[in-house]
Amino acid sequence: MITKYRAKATKLPEGLRVETESRNFKISIDEPKSLGGENKSMSPVEVLLCALGGCQAIVASAFAEAHDVKFDDFHVEIEGDIDLDGFMGKSLVRPGFQEIRYTMHFKRSEPREKILRFVEFMEKTCPVGDSIENEVKLVNSGVILE
Amino acid sequence: MITKYRAKATKLPEGLRVETESRNFKISIDEPKSLGGENKSMSPVEVLLCALGGCQAIVASAFAEAHDVKFDDFHVEIEGDIDLDGFMGKSLVRPGFQEIRYTMHFKRSEPREKILRFVEFMEKTCPVGDSIENEVKLVNSGVILE
Repeated sequence: MITKYRAKATKLPEGLRVETESRNFKISIDEPKSLGGENKSMSPVEVLLCALGGCQAIVASAFAEAHDVKFDDFHVEIEGDIDLDGFMGKSLVRPGFQEIRYTMHFKRSEPREKILRFVEFMEKTCPVGDSIENEVKLVNSGVILE
Repeated sequence: MITKYRAKATKLPEGLRVETESRNFKISIDEPKSLGGENKSMSPVEVLLCALGGCQAIVASAFAEAHDVKFDDFHVEIEGDIDLDGFMGKSLVRPGFQEIRYTMHFKRSEPREKILRFVEFMEKTCPVGDSIENEVKLVNSGVILE
């Protein structure tokens, strides 16, 4: 059964700042000064990396019991490469991430083999990971001039 | 030239909540109660949609002048479909987004044709849009048992 998720992003009057919202939650987005912003919040590509790490962490928590895996703490460090010449139009290189790497940390956990099998499951199951690693159809449903 | 972006996601002790950070900025992530969370923050897939909308809004702001396009306000509404049976392991359907649709709103803007050309440019240029619409290589750099 399809679940629909929704969000809205509104440009703020000055600079590059954006207020985004989904249900009753909000995330502010900006760019660093080097890219013309005021550096008040994360940039969108950093928000994307947080979505990925957050999703991996939630998959770890949500499925640990069903996989009989115990650990005290989990965190993941994520790093991604963008060639900004693509965004700037100085090159035909893609504007998005070329590669995203992550290192997962489990504290006081099970034997290594068991954790590695669980990580393999996590990678297959993570909705944000799948949405980044594989193509998603983006559809422009309309441009409205108000 | 490659710019590296970094983030970290840390599972909080109770429930599914995650604290994510990039540079000195933080975003909290949770799941609604229907998926086992406490509904304190957006879910990761909603954060992904906010990253997309935020990126589109920043591209609109950042490139308007260079494209000689003027508008007073911009916002974008985004909607995406996920079949949660994939995440739940009840079906082989992909766990991520099957489709993401967006409607862009410009206020007191230029002639429609000019805005549509600008939107086409925005879609090609948006780093988060490219990262979702096209494949990104995800690399597991390590699993560390502490």
